[in-house]
Order: sequence, then C-alpha cells, then structure tokens
Amino acid sequence: MISENAAMNELLAFQRGTEALSSIAERLSWDQETVMPRGAVEQRSEEMAAIEAVLHERRTDPRIGEWLELAVPQTESEERIVALIARDFGRANAIPAELATEIARQTSLGQGIWAAARANEAPQDFLPTLDQILVLKQDQGHALVRAGFGSDPYDALLDDYEPGTTQAEIAALFDAMRPRLVALREEILGAPDQPEALEGRFAQETQMRLARACATAFGYDWSRGRMDIAVHPFSSGRWQDSRITTRIVETDPFNCIYSTIHEVGHSSYELGIDPDHAFTPLGRGVSMGVHESQSRIYENQLGRSRAFTGWLFARMTDMTGGLSVPDADAFYRTVNRVTPGFIRTESDEVQYNLHIMMRFDLERDLISGRLSTDNLEEAWNTRFQRDFGVAVDRPSNGVLQDVHWSVGLFGYFPTYALGNVYAGALNAALRTAVPDLDDSLQDGDATPATEWLREKLQRHGGLYEPRDLVERATGRPVTPEPLLAYLEEKFAGIYGL
Amino acid sequence: MISENAAMNELLAFQRGTEALSSIAERLSWDQETVMPRGAVEQRSEEMAAIEAVLHERRTDPRIGEWLELAVPQTESEERIVALIARDFGRANAIPAELATEIARQTSLGQGIWAAARANEAPQDFLPTLDQILVLKQDQGHALVRAGFGSDPYDALLDDYEPGTTQAEIAALFDAMRPRLVALREEILGAPDQPEALEGRFAQETQMRLARACATAFGYDWSRGRMDIAVHPFSSGRWQDSRITTRIVETDPFNCIYSTIHEVGHSSYELGIDPDHAFTPLGRGVSMGVHESQSRIYENQLGRSRAFTGWLFARMTDMTGGLSVPDADAFYRTVNRVTPGFIRTESDEVQYNLHIMMRFDLERDLISGRLSTDNLEEAWNTRFQRDFGVAVDRPSNGVLQDVHWSVGLFGYFPTYALGNVYAGALNAALRTAVPDLDDSLQDGDATPATEWLREKLQRHGGLYEPRDLVERATGRPVTPEPLLAYLEEKFAGIYGL
Repeated sequence: MISENAAMNELLAFQRGTEALSSIAERLSWDQETVMPRGAVEQRSEEMAAIEAVLHERRTDPRIGEWLELAVPQTESEERIVALIARDFGRANAIPAELATEIARQTSLGQGIWAAARANEAPQDFLPTLDQILVLKQDQGHALVRAGFGSDPYDALLDDYEPGTTQAEIAALFDAMRPRLVALREEILGAPDQPEALEGRFAQETQMRLARACATAFGYDWSRGRMDIAVHPFSSGRWQDSRITTRIVETDPFNCIYSTIHEVGHSSYELGIDPDHAFTPLGRGVSMGVHESQSRIYENQLGRSRAFTGWLFARMTDMTGGLSVPDADAFYRTVNRVTPGFIRTESDEVQYNLHIMMRFDLERDLISGRLSTDNLEEAWNTRFQRDFGVAVDRPSNGVLQDVHWSVGLFGYFPTYALGNVYAGALNAALRTAVPDLDDSLQDGDATPATEWLREKLQRHGGLYEPRDLVERATGRPVTPEPLLAYLEEKFAGIYGL
Repeated sequence: MISENAAMNELLAFQRGTEALSSIAERLSWDQETVMPRGAVEQRSEEMAAIEAVLHERRTDPRIGEWLELAVPQTESEERIVALIARDFGRANAIPAELATEIARQTSLGQGIWAAARANEAPQDFLPTLDQILVLKQDQGHALVRAGFGSDPYDALLDDYEPGTTQAEIAALFDAMRPRLVALREEILGAPDQPEALEGRFAQETQMRLARACATAFGYDWSRGRMDIAVHPFSSGRWQDSRITTRIVETDPFNCIYSTIHEVGHSSYELGIDPDHAFTPLGRGVSMGVHESQSRIYENQLGRSRAFTGWLFARMTDMTGGLSVPDADAFYRTVNRVTPGFIRTESDEVQYNLHIMMRFDLERDLISGRLSTDNLEEAWNTRFQRDFGVAVDRPSNGVLQDVHWSVGLFGYFPTYALGNVYAGALNAALRTAVPDLDDSLQDGDATPATEWLREKLQRHGGLYEPRDLVERATGRPVTPEPLLAYLEEKFAGIYGL
C-alpha cells in the first residue's frame, strides 16, 4: 500500500511525463506544418499514431485511478491539478476503446475527403463521411453523459474545449448579440462613405519584416519562440518554446500582419504562464475561449486600434516607400473595412460572430439529431441568406468552407465567439486600468497591455475555470455588453453612423 | 496462450511503435540543434527524458521475451528482425536499471563539464567526471560480458556501434595501416612542392548555394530531406525524412561543401534502404562503420576526386567570379592539402586514421584499467608526439578536443576508421563496376555511384551483419589494402612523390 504522499508524488511525476510527451506530439505537428519534407507524410502519420497511442495509454492508465483515490493535495494548485487530472481520466475512460479508435480512424480520413470535396465543389463526396463522424461524435457525447459529464451530448463535447460552459449559457450570450450585430452590419454596409482597400503588391521579405516588428511590438519573446510560414497560421507550444507561424499573400499584407499579431496573442498566453505550472495541467491555456480572447484582444482591440494602426501606417510607409491610402486616418478605416463575404476566416470584427452563431446552431442540431447531414447544405444556405442577406454561390463558400467537422470538432466553433466576448470584457477593464495605453500603442509598444494581461490572466494558466478566470481579471460578470459597445462605438466612428 | 503467429505479429507491431518513437526522439534532437529557440533548453531536456523513459520501458518490456519465445519467423527478413530484437532486448536487460539510470545521468552532465573544461584549458576540471563515467562504462561492459555479449568489456561496448566486430580484428587492421600511413604522412609533409591554400571570403548565401548544388550532384532527394545550419553538422532521420545540416566558415568554403557531401552520404544510406524495412530494425543503417563508409566515400573518394573537383572548380569560379587558385589542377591539390595539425575533425584523408588509432588504443587501455584517467593526458601527449612528430600545445588541442568520452562513447572512435577501410574497399569495387564514373563526376553527377551503392549496399539496411554486407557488396574479404593503395597513389600524384 502506498502512502498518501507517495500517491500524490507518483501522480505528479506520471503527469509530468504525460505533459512532456504531449508537448512532443505538438512539436511534431509544428514540424509537419512548417519544415517537414513533403515526401514524409506516411512516416509522420505513423509517428503521430505511435505517440498518440502512448498518450492514450497513459491517460487511461489504471494507476491514475489508484493514485487519485489516495492522493492528498496540500495546496490550492495541487487541488486544482488533481481535479483536472481526475476530469481528464474520467473523460478518457468514459469512451470505450473501440469508439476512441474508430473516431481517431474516421477523423484522420475525414480531412482528406473534405479537402477533395471542397476542391471539387462536391458536398455529396463528403457528407456520407461527415455522417459517419457525426454518429461517432453522438456516441461519444452519450458515453460522456452516461459517465456524468454533462446532461446533454453537445454539452459533453463542448466541455472538451470550454470546460464548465454549457450551450444554454452560450445560446443566451449569442441571442443577446445577434440582433445588434445584424443591425450594425446592415448600417455599415449601407453607409455612403466606404473605406478604400489597400492597393499594391508587398514582397515576402517586407511582409516578414513588418510581421517581426509587430510581434516585437507586442512583446513576443524571441528567445522562447520563432516565426515560420505555414499554409494556415497557428501557434504551437508553451513554457520555454511557443512558436508562431504566419502566411504571405502578396496583395494583402494585413493577412500576414494580423495573423502574426493573433498568434502572438496565443503564444504570449502560453509563455506568460507561471513557470511553476510547467508540465502540470495548469501549465497551459485553460480553454479555447480564453485562448481566443488573448489572440483576439491582441489582434483586434489593440492591433486594429487607431493608436496602433497609426504606428503601423508609419512603419509600412517607411518600408514600402508609400502606400495607396493617403494618411493614418484613412489607413485605420482601411484596416477595419467591412465588406460582404462568405468566408468566416476572412471576415471582420463585426461579421465574424455571425458566422460562428450559425455554425453553433447547425452543429447543435446535428448532434441532437434535429438536423441530418442530408439537409445540412440547405440549412446552411437558408441561414446564411437570413443573417447575411446573400445567397451562397458555391459549396466551398458555404457548407464546405471549414475543416472543423471533418476532423470531429463539434463544440469547438462557439469558443471563437466566446473568445471575442471575453476579449471585449478584458479590453474594457484593461482600458480602465491602463488609461494611457494608446500613448504606448501609437509608439508601437503594446507591452503595457501584455503586462496587464499577464498579471491578471495569463500567468494563472489552468488554475481557475475559464469564466471564473475572466471574471477575476475584469472584476465583473461576463456579459457581451462590453464587446457590443466597443464594436458599435468603433464602427460608428469609422463609418460615420 | 497466444499462438506463434500472433506472437510474431504482436512483436512486429510493438517494434513498429518503438521504431516510430525512436524516430521521434531523433527528430527532437534535430529540432534542438537547428531551429529550437535558445531559451528552451530545460524544457527540451525534460521532453527528451520523457521519451527516453518510454523507449527504455519498451526496450525492456517483459512481453518481448514472451513473444520471442513463441514467435516463428517465416522469411529471411523476419529471422533477422527477430535476431536483432533479441539482441537489443538481451543487451537492454543485461544492464541493471540503477546502472542505466546512473549512466544516463552522468553522461548528460558530462558534456557540459567537458565543454567548460575545454574552454578553460583545464583538464583537471573534467577528469574526475570522466573517471566516474569510465567506471560506469566498465560496469556496463562487465554486465554485458556476464550476460554473454562478448568476452571482454571493450568488445561488449564496441558491439553497440559495430555489431559483430572485435577489438582484435580492428587492432589487426590498424596495425597493418599505421606504418604505411605514418610513412606517407612524412613523405607528403617533406615534399618540396606544397599545394596552396584557398584565399578569400565566401558569403553564407554563396556557400549555401554551392552546398545545395553539391547535394543535388550526389542525388540527395530534396522531397525527403532538407538542409539547415548547425554548429556541428549531422544528418538525422530515415525512410521518408532524412535531413542534413552544414556549417558556414566564411574563410573556408570547403568546410561547408565537404560537410554537406559527407552528410549527404549518411542520408543517402538511410533514404536508400528498402521501404519494406521501414519501422523494423532493418530500416536503418546497420552500423556506425558502414554508415561512415557511405559518408566517407561520398566526401573523399568521390567528392575530393580530380573529376568532381574539376566540376566544383568551375561552379565556384562561376559563383564567385574567380578563385585564388589558377586552374582545376591546382584546385584539386588545394582541396586535398595535407598540413600538420592537432585536431581530428580538421584533418585530411591521410592523417585522419592516425588520430583514430591513438584514441582506439587509449580508450581500450582506459576500459581495461591499464590506463587511469590521471595519466590520460600524459599518455595522449606522448602518443601524439610519436605519431605526429609534434608536441601538443594545449589541452583543447589534445586530450580535451573530442566530446565522445564525456558522453560515454567508448568503442565509438574505431568505427570512423573502419568506415574509411570499408569506403576504400567499396571504392575499388565501384570503380571496377562503373569504369566511366569519372565522366559523370566531371559533369557534377555522382548519381551512378549512388545507384551502385544503393543496389549493392544501402537498400539492405540492417539485413546483414556489417562486414558481411561490405563483403557481399565488394565480392571479397575486407582488408585495408584498397584504402592504402588508393591513398598512396592519390597523394603520390598530388605531391609528386
């Protein structure tokens, strides 16, 4: 019989190993998306499968159950660590092994089938696969409910990405936001004076120099990170090694710049966590929503502010010898331009959340069985027409545009909008706490914002539940009001509403 | 009770996982030496420890013993796979767990202590650590002997790097080589007409373009590899992903060029192995000696040949607008210049093996206890004076120059010279089989050599024991004669001996 202390120590040591192996798996994915030779796909797939098998075995290791029964945590941190390990262990063991294997198999195939169907504008090539994945995810949701994780399969799935939040809470937030965002969108698009687009071509080298300058402006720690080019920008890793990626579109330098600032937000969060939490479940961002709040506040509330874009205008003018827009005020309007469009990832601060809301409603209906995959495309197009006022012209601009469902990510979409809500709340508190922030931003220095966010939120890692963490940082309950007020005020100014 | 077939299948499946995880660990090391942020050292150390712990557990997993008892291999490949797994399993289990842990601990510390001692020219700061490592390696050797792996601790250690070869065999080779190499070296250094050195500075970009052209000339498959810069060049990985590194010294482009060609040799071997062997013990180079034979024949017998250097001279002249040497003949002599020097890694084809021979003799005496670490520096300096005719001027040019012993690599050095002997034998057979090889080499195309080596040697991976493999490829017993004859003829021509 092992003692209570021994059980706690063994649990922590075992978890350290699991966290380190999980970090390795993430580094392999980074490698695959940035530097891996293109001919290494099969090999990498087998390597990933091997380390995922080790991780799955560790996460369901029966010794964890024994240690959990005996372990007596001594501190608040240890209590939270034990609770998080217990939750992961319970969730992992709730899924029958055959179901877990089948989900892994189908979702690894799903992405390729989706990509081909999207390229061919052929939803019928993808929907049967989606249907199989959907059934598996429904089964997963039911298995989790039976094991006591949530009262509803969708809530149980959501809990993987945003622990402690329910679809009812999210639906209430979204219901409050939707009419005001639809109205704001209509006003903006109907305004007589529309901002101009940025014209010209921007060399890769220039864009990368700008991106580096922006990352530095936001306090990105280059000694613990690096920047590479990827097809879809992402950030990867934590503690002493959190890397970012960006992409280059020759005619659209904002793609590179704001992807960079967005990923710097994610990485700053991971790099800002108290090093004492490293290799414990507290040593990473607590949820997708909170993560997204960091990337979004960096990208939007700070990065697209009048103050920061003033600095950016000067830098870009210096580096390129002159832009197509005449001055910093026009540049600010250009950066924040709202235009009609089908694609979520290309949309602006106003329309983005509307994209999310329709996906949230559709995927809840899919999981509950109220909507079948046979009717999904029609449901998508109907809803898009209603919220955006235009008809979807082709599947790649509609139901086939996102990768998420093809890899089994049901319950993930709402965390993007939740991140925006959190970012709005944090921005209001930040601006009160650091009233002269714009003075720094206009000099290309966002570090006072990073410092406040680090102190109030980032350093805690997984110590508090997501919403609790945001409420501790802002000192008030989370509501969509700060985000909506910010958007209405900002875009009224830009569009003369 | 599992059936024979089931045992074989389970053994192979388990081994696939182990091979994949081992490949991941190697990829992490690549990352660390090339792209990892400098601030990530502690984190990476914990990650490496975690995956090494998993690998150690798998290599000693008692189920392997059960499967080995029952498994019935059906083919020659399967027989060899089972034999290799059994050998690794036996060797891993021969080392007591505490000894394995202590070796891992001491050798992970050893490198840092060695590097500091070398920087400070202070052998006394390193020798106590070396002594601890030596005792552990002696213990390891004795443990292996007790378990039936070799009749002598040094042989048992050597077997990790060059399976099936004994120190007696190596000593016999070296005894035959040493007098002729010492004599050749003296003749060369005494010759009246010495080649000139290459003068000038060569930009990093130019060197990298040259290095890429050389790698391509040797048939390096860029779709399954890439090239980066590292402090100490190395190659890493296999099957679909074998990467090389090189280094840049502004005043010495040959460093970059020949490091590249050397590493292309290693990588070509790994990339040339029959894909059917992937993720089995046959799916990698069979020994360090055979590996080195590939890197050396690419670098020296082919890369420093008159034919290839003629092409290289033209390329370098094109890219730089003119070199300090007047023509291709002078350039060939410059590339193959022999000068006195203390450092193994900077030495030429003639002197390199002499450096190895003294290390081989010294480390055998250390492991057997005939030489103590207290007397090591004196023994080194005495031997160096005898073989090279000059006195060592400082420890970093003498006993502290190599990292190997500090990380526990006893028995590794002789594989470098063995590689040269194998390369000499392979080159003689290659030149007979492909008599017009120089016609291709002078056009910057070494692929006929790669094709022959692939067919005769590389594709077999671990299928045959090292010496057997080389003898199958050349059709005759391994002797140092082809290497010595090649060196004597080549340098007689260059130095007018």
